[in-house]
Formats: sequence, structure tokens, C-alpha cells
Amino acid sequence: MNANDHRFPGTPRAERKGRAAALAQGRRVAADNVTALLEAVVECGDRVCVEGNNQKQADFLARTLAGVDPQRVHDLHLVQSVVALPEHVALFERGIASQLDFSFSGPQATRLASLVEEGRIRVNAIHTYLELFARYFVDLTPNVALIAAEAADAQGNLYTGPNTEDTPAIVEATAFRGGIVIAQVNEIRDTLPRVDIPADWVDYVVEAPTPYYIEPLFTRDPALISEIQVLMAMMVIRGIYARYGVTTLNHGIGFDTAAIELLLPTYAAQLGLKGRICTHWALNPHPALIPAIEAGFVHSVHSFGSELGMEAYIASRPDVFFTGADGSMRSNRAFCQAAGHYACDLFIGSTLQIDLAGNSSTATRGRIAGFGGAPNMGADARGRRHESAAWIKAGEEARQGRDEMPRGRKLVVQMVETFREHMEPAFVERLDAWDLARDMGLSNPPVMIFGDDVTHIVTEEGIANLLLCRDAGEREQAIRGVAGYTAVGLARDRDRVAELESRGVILRPAALGISRRQASRDLLAARSVKDLVRISGGLYEPPSRFRNW
Amino acid sequence: MNANDHRFPGTPRAERKGRAAALAQGRRVAADNVTALLEAVVECGDRVCVEGNNQKQADFLARTLAGVDPQRVHDLHLVQSVVALPEHVALFERGIASQLDFSFSGPQATRLASLVEEGRIRVNAIHTYLELFARYFVDLTPNVALIAAEAADAQGNLYTGPNTEDTPAIVEATAFRGGIVIAQVNEIRDTLPRVDIPADWVDYVVEAPTPYYIEPLFTRDPALISEIQVLMAMMVIRGIYARYGVTTLNHGIGFDTAAIELLLPTYAAQLGLKGRICTHWALNPHPALIPAIEAGFVHSVHSFGSELGMEAYIASRPDVFFTGADGSMRSNRAFCQAAGHYACDLFIGSTLQIDLAGNSSTATRGRIAGFGGAPNMGADARGRRHESAAWIKAGEEARQGRDEMPRGRKLVVQMVETFREHMEPAFVERLDAWDLARDMGLSNPPVMIFGDDVTHIVTEEGIANLLLCRDAGEREQAIRGVAGYTAVGLARDRDRVAELESRGVILRPAALGISRRQASRDLLAARSVKDLVRISGGLYEPPSRFRNW
Repeated sequence: MNANDHRFPGTPRAERKGRAAALAQGRRVAADNVTALLEAVVECGDRVCVEGNNQKQADFLARTLAGVDPQRVHDLHLVQSVVALPEHVALFERGIASQLDFSFSGPQATRLASLVEEGRIRVNAIHTYLELFARYFVDLTPNVALIAAEAADAQGNLYTGPNTEDTPAIVEATAFRGGIVIAQVNEIRDTLPRVDIPADWVDYVVEAPTPYYIEPLFTRDPALISEIQVLMAMMVIRGIYARYGVTTLNHGIGFDTAAIELLLPTYAAQLGLKGRICTHWALNPHPALIPAIEAGFVHSVHSFGSELGMEAYIASRPDVFFTGADGSMRSNRAFCQAAGHYACDLFIGSTLQIDLAGNSSTATRGRIAGFGGAPNMGADARGRRHESAAWIKAGEEARQGRDEMPRGRKLVVQMVETFREHMEPAFVERLDAWDLARDMGLSNPPVMIFGDDVTHIVTEEGIANLLLCRDAGEREQAIRGVAGYTAVGLARDRDRVAELESRGVILRPAALGISRRQASRDLLAARSVKDLVRISGGLYEPPSRFRNW
Repeated sequence: MNANDHRFPGTPRAERKGRAAALAQGRRVAADNVTALLEAVVECGDRVCVEGNNQKQADFLARTLAGVDPQRVHDLHLVQSVVALPEHVALFERGIASQLDFSFSGPQATRLASLVEEGRIRVNAIHTYLELFARYFVDLTPNVALIAAEAADAQGNLYTGPNTEDTPAIVEATAFRGGIVIAQVNEIRDTLPRVDIPADWVDYVVEAPTPYYIEPLFTRDPALISEIQVLMAMMVIRGIYARYGVTTLNHGIGFDTAAIELLLPTYAAQLGLKGRICTHWALNPHPALIPAIEAGFVHSVHSFGSELGMEAYIASRPDVFFTGADGSMRSNRAFCQAAGHYACDLFIGSTLQIDLAGNSSTATRGRIAGFGGAPNMGADARGRRHESAAWIKAGEEARQGRDEMPRGRKLVVQMVETFREHMEPAFVERLDAWDLARDMGLSNPPVMIFGDDVTHIVTEEGIANLLLCRDAGEREQAIRGVAGYTAVGLARDRDRVAELESRGVILRPAALGISRRQASRDLLAARSVKDLVRISGGLYEPPSRFRNW
């Protein structure tokens, strides 16, 4: 299992650094020397973390590592949350790395599946973020970490700015277990706005030829939100948020949840829900949340990472966001994932496939996409003990009057249209994850969220409340009952579905007091990116790809 | 629920600090000025965290806060992991604080229960540590944090030394949400061995008149380990650790688990288990682990906090412990709890009461002790996805051949003698937690570990494997079957217990190949504190209370 543990931490740091002595001046290394530095300090078989968050990337260091001599450096074991860049994949194609433990692959999902098929990579596990960070402190500590920061000072202190993300977790594990930390920075400055990582924890600093790459992953253009998404968002607000009184929550990425955010100051406010729902968030600074913040709906937002263009707006709202004395945001993926797990009453997200038991996965045939934070936030936090109205009510519904020890329950909502792009059904008899498990040599299929952790499935057809299902048969019919015209939906038992509707296990829009005619884009508090800019008082500065004016 | 959220973060930091301008020189505040400082920056209704970990204590700041004028400062809401000092309780007795959110109270458990009864304190919830830290970033962010560090430099950078514990989580949440961080330090030095908390994150530093208080909580004298504990430890090693191949784990505090640690280099080694079990730990540096470390049993230990007297020994084993470039340990309770939750296959601990469904609690009549890390580490980590032999096997046993999506499972073991001190039975029909819920105004009884998360209960009578129980009735008989001569044990159904024994649901020592005669103290790798010192090569320096030579 831990093949290289007999040697960890391996050659002592001092000896490795001794080999690189001529390449550095203090902690400073010139960009031209980084190939030689990596060949000096990285050893075959090392566990290496190339910081790839789902936003910022240590892209210069990734590119340089992909260019080392595979005769000198090979069989690396990559332990990093995101495999997003072509250079990450190139490490395996060039034979520099052979094993991978990760969380999310996004754009490289297809290439990763091919490499597995070709036997050129061993993927040990698809983790949730906090799980991978946790293993950094137990059995997956990196020998070498290649990280990215905005700036360093002459001593080697680092300023990560708003995109701190995974950096603290990676650096702490590596630096305090005899590993070597190499940081690429956009610039060296005389003084830093603040210190995010102390110099003691950093071995080498290199000014990269170009600023690190960053992806605006959480920006959704309101213009692209459909009226079906408005309808589903209304159902969620009325049938889930208001019903349980959800105040602390996390939203997944996507247009479905952006629609909810944009209905808070309009539809939810009309229902008298301001101050009663959606007050405290574990969330990246979604631009779609600006209208709700400006309407006073939102008390607090702690973030995994930042979002491009939101800097000035965030700085103007220290009453809502976590910002430093310098005014810029402090994000921290590890703490925000802990918040999503333990401090939130609800997680809502989307998926590619859901089966008849409610198991869902984004790992489909030919794509090893990974799960990111979803398994962590979309699982019941069984260690949680503090009570909230939503948590208690969900627990009571799950217990259904059985004589068991009372226990609260997290609300975990899957929100999908019955058909995805290209008319692929979201509901399937069997997840592709079963085939993927076979291909990857896993004992258990890579499920993103297990059916017994899901409490609600929302489609344009209605809400299935799985908490109220009394057995697996009812659960299956509740799922079929909101699966619309997919094959899974068409195979429903009409009588049983009618019975579930009469019991409120399935809630149609009409039962929620929502008419489909109401579901108009006019309800959105912003209908374009330009609206968001206006509502932010001109402080939100969207990346150019989102501007059409 | 969040009564003071309408005003959070309340008066801006700059305004609060303005009121204290005359009391500080830069970040430095003289000890004599701290009462005035607190009266200047703390406002009525504030959320305040007085750093009380289960080891180090910001005791000078706690004492000073307890001495402020209750006319000026009252109705504080304490949000801190441990309520351990008399001064913490005095805050409520003097009317300075009125609400509490906490994790563990240890020595103040009885006093806390009285205050609740008298209606002088509202205890909102008993959290697990990581849950409380998570809420610091959502709905329990402190307005003011009073923390402890070993040293500061002139700029205000902090060195926390080996006892970093909760400090990073507390400071990050407070400093980045407009709160005020005040640090007591043992000394101001020109240069620090390393920087643990950057000066930017700290508002005020005070050199305390005496070094902060620290409790050697994890030291267990091997001389006090009984032969019954040796027997139980042998059962755990053979019946659980070897059976599942447990490599990553956490041990609770106590003599039961200390016995296991001391049997690794002897009994476990004789069974050929070296390298096959107990290689990677999330654990404070227990002195009882020294023999296993010296025998090469242990590859890695990441710690929540340190342990007094272990400093020089830890510094000598950077191959095992997480240490900085300065040689001293870096602990971090938040990361170690994440490791205990997500990276460990097994948690084993003890409790005061277990009911017929396996629910356990240390919150008993007249004592609100809290749970510390147990609920977090003693709960199935449902977000976990990485596979290990132990996790897969536990999941297979739990599934019992049912046609469900395969899913691994954490091993959660409760290890208790059937009778505690004063012949109190560990097994009860009904937990005192039910009464406590009523007294505290909670909807759910404060259970430490829920029965459906427990996989094994170990007593001197044998091991009950709850994974193999097919229904609640079997589970009850399995528990009664190891409950010995307690009333719960005597009420067993003999035929059903015999059937459970025949199926291996209950394992007696003989069935494990262990004779009670074998269970001798001679098997312990160290039989005294002096032995531990010798085996450490003289590096372990036990506190004087543990020395009798």
C-alpha cells in the first residue's frame, strides 16, 4: 500500500540541499537554474506535490519538472489535489512519474483515463480534498512540494494573496517532515502586504518568467441561466431552504446553484426569507452572490479560494468576507472544507449520473474527473454534535419515528435536469463507476456521493425527499418519480409514485405553490455579467472572456 | 441560534484598537496594562476565545479577563475548545460571560454542570474539536482571541514551539475577520527558532509574569498497567489490528491503549506483525510509544499537541515526528484531527457509559465533560474514498453480502473494563446523556460515539464485533455478551450469546488463541517510567510527578 514508506523521508534534507548549494543564493534561485535544482533535490521514487489547486497553478514549476531528464528522475509518486495542466499529464507520458493520488482532474479527465488504460499510470485513489490533505500528515507526506505564491520578500516570506487555497496544508506537511518546499512567485518585493507563509518553511524561491496561471472557475454568466433552472431554484428555495430553515451552507459550481443565488434578493425576499435562510456560507466568492450580499441577505462567506475579478469587491466588504489587515482576502481550502463538512447544514451540487439507489458519480466511462470537495461536503458529518433547526429536522425525518437514539442529519441535495447535454440521461440503472473500478483496479466503484448520504434529488419534475422513503423500493420509485422522460423515469410504477406524491415524499412544483409560468428569468436579480458589475458598484471586474460590452 | 450575528463583526477593529492606543507600544503591551487593554477592546456580547487547549493554556490572559469589571464587560459568548481552568468558570460566576460553545471540560466538568443547573450559563453545544474550529470560519468567529505562545520577537512574530495545538485555527479565523488577537508569551526574544504565526496576524503581545500552564495529559506510568489491561491489549492486537491489518490509527488517552503501545515490540513482534500493523499514527507523542519507535515499529507520528518531557526525544527522531528546521516539533490540532478523521483506519478509545445499542458517552449525571476529538475520530468518515485493506474488510463485514454499493468503513473500537472505578458498571440500559439533554435544553442527548459508528466493543470478557450483527436484537446480545457481571451482562440470553460466539461475532480470548495466563505484565516493553527513560537513551525527561527515583 505504502510502497516507498520503508525509505521515507529518505535522504535527509540537508544532503539534498547540499547537492543544490551552487544553484541558490540563500533561498533565491534563478529561473534558468530550476531544472538543475529539481534534478539535484528530487530523487527517484519521491512523493512530489505540484501545487495544482482548482484555481491557481504552480505552472512554471510543473513545466520545468516535466522537462527534467527522465533518466535521472523517474518513478515519482504525485500527490496533489488537482491534475489540471497538460504538464501534469506529461510527467506520466515522459516516464518521470508513475503513480498518482489526487482529488480532481477536470480538463485532463479523458487523458487520465487513457493513461490508465495504457497502463502508464497507477491511480491509487480519487480523494476528497480534505482527505488528501489529511494523508499528507500520515502516509502521503511529500518529499518535495512545488508551490505558487504571488510574491516573496528577500527573506523568503511568501504572500499568497487571496488565492491561498491549498498552500498552507501542502507547505506545513512538507516543511515539517524533512521535505523540501520550492515556491514560484510572480515577483520579489521589498515588503509584502502580509505574510501568509513564513520564510522558515520555504527552502527555495524562484521568480517565475510569467505570473502563475489562474482559472476563473466559479464565474457563471447570468445570461446563460435558463427558465428551467429558475424553476428548479424556486423549488429548492421553497421546498428545502425554507422548509428546513437552512442558514449555513455550501453551493456547488454550476448554473443551477447560481440561479438560487440570484433569486435570493427577489423570490426568497418576497417569501419573507431574508435573515432566515442562507446567511452563512462556505463558498468561493461567486460573482452571482453579489446581489444577495448587497441586499443584506448574507452575513458571512469563508472561501476555499478566490475568484478573478472579485478582488476590489471583496476588499469593500470585510463585514462579509475573511480579509487580512491589508484588505485582501485570505482563503484556505483545508479550513473551508472543514467548515463545509462540520459547520454547514446543507450541501447542494450536481452530478453526471445518478442510479436507482441515489448513488452519483462524475467519473464516467472514459473520464476520470475526480470529485473535489463533493464527497466531503456531501456526506453526513457523523462527528457533528451542535444543533440547528435544519439539522434536527432532517434527523427527525430520517428517523421516521423509529425508536433510535436521536441524531441530526446533514442535508445533501443533488440538483440535476433529467437530461444533460447531448440528451444524455442523468438517471441510469447502473453507474459507469463500476467499469471504472475494474479499469483502475479498485475494490469499490468511485462514487462521488453515496445514495444513503443524499437527502433530496431535485429535477425540473420535482423534489424527491429520500429521508421520507421507508425502504429501498420506495427510494427507487421516488427517484424514478422525478426522472421524467429518461428510461429510468418511464419505468416508474405510477401507483406507487402517486402514493409518494400524496405523502409528500415527491413534491411537484404545484404542491410547493409554484406555477411554471412564474419561473421567469425576470426573477433573477442580475440577468447579465454587466448587471453584476453594476450591482457591485463597479467594483467587480470580470475577466475579459465574460465581457461583451 | 446566532443571536449576535446581526452585529458581527461589530465595532471595527480600528476603532477598538484606537481606544487602546495609549496602552501599547507597537504591538507590545505591559502585563500591568492588560486589564485596561481587555476593557478597551472587548465589548459586551462579543464572542471571545480564551485559548484553552487540552494541554497549554493562555492562563494569564484568562485570569486577567476574569478580573475585568463585569459592569463594563458582560454577556460574553465563550467559543473555545477546552474549559479547563478555574478562571474559565469564574467568567460565568462573575457574570462576565453567559454563553459557551466548547469541546472538552475535563477538571471543570462538575462545576459546569452546576452552573447549568443554576441557570448561570447557557451551553449551546458540546463540539468535537474540528467542528468547533470549522464554526470559527462560519458562525462562531471570535471578535477577540486570547492565545498563548512560547516566545515573540520585537515585530510580534510568534514561536509556539512544540505546543502549537489550536493556535493556528484560532488566529486565522479571528485575524482575517476583523477580530483582535492578543498573545501572551513566556518571553520576548531577539530571534525566534522559527516563526509559527506571522506578526501580521497578531494585534498585541504581552510577556506574561509566568510561563503558560501546560498539562502532561498523555503520560501514563507503565507501572500502573494491570494484567487485565494487558489481556485486553493482546485481544485488540490479535483480534482487531492483525485481523484487519490496521496500519493507520489513533489511540485515545488511557492505560488500556498505553498497554497496546507497550505490547507492540513484544507480543505483536512475536506474532510477526512488525511493519504490518501500527505504522502510521495521528497521536500526541505518548511516552508509552517510545519502545515501539525504538523497535522500528513506527514509521510516522503526527501530533495534535506535544507532551512535556518528550522534547529532546522527539528532536532525535525527525524520521518519525513532524519537526521544523529548528529541530522542535510542529503540532497542529486541526490538521491532526483531519488526519484522525480521514487518514486513519481505526480509532480506539474508552468511555464511561455504553448502552444496549452501543451508544456511549462521557457526559454523565452531574458532569459535563465534553468529548474532545472522539466524535470526529470515532465516526465513520463517509467522505473518505481511498482504499486500504482494513477499510475494505470492515466495509465488507458491514455489508454482510447485501446487494448494496460497496463502501469501506472505519474501525471504531470502544475498550472498557466491565466495571469502572468504584464498581460503576460501564454498561447501562439508558445513558445519563438523556437527562443531561433535558437539563441543557438540547434536542438530542450528548452522545460521544453513536452505536451505529462503533464496530467493536472490547472488555476483559472478549470482543463484540458489531459489524457482524444482523439486527438490533443481535447487537444487544453481542453487547450483553461482553458485559460480564454487570446487570446488563447478567441479563443476556445465553443461547443467543452462544450462537454469536459460534459465528465469531463474540470472540473470547481462547478463540483468539490467548490464554489468560499469558497476560502478564512481563510482556510490557517498559514496566515503569524509568524503563521509558532508559529505552529513550536518556532523552525522555519525565515531569517530576512521574519520577520516583
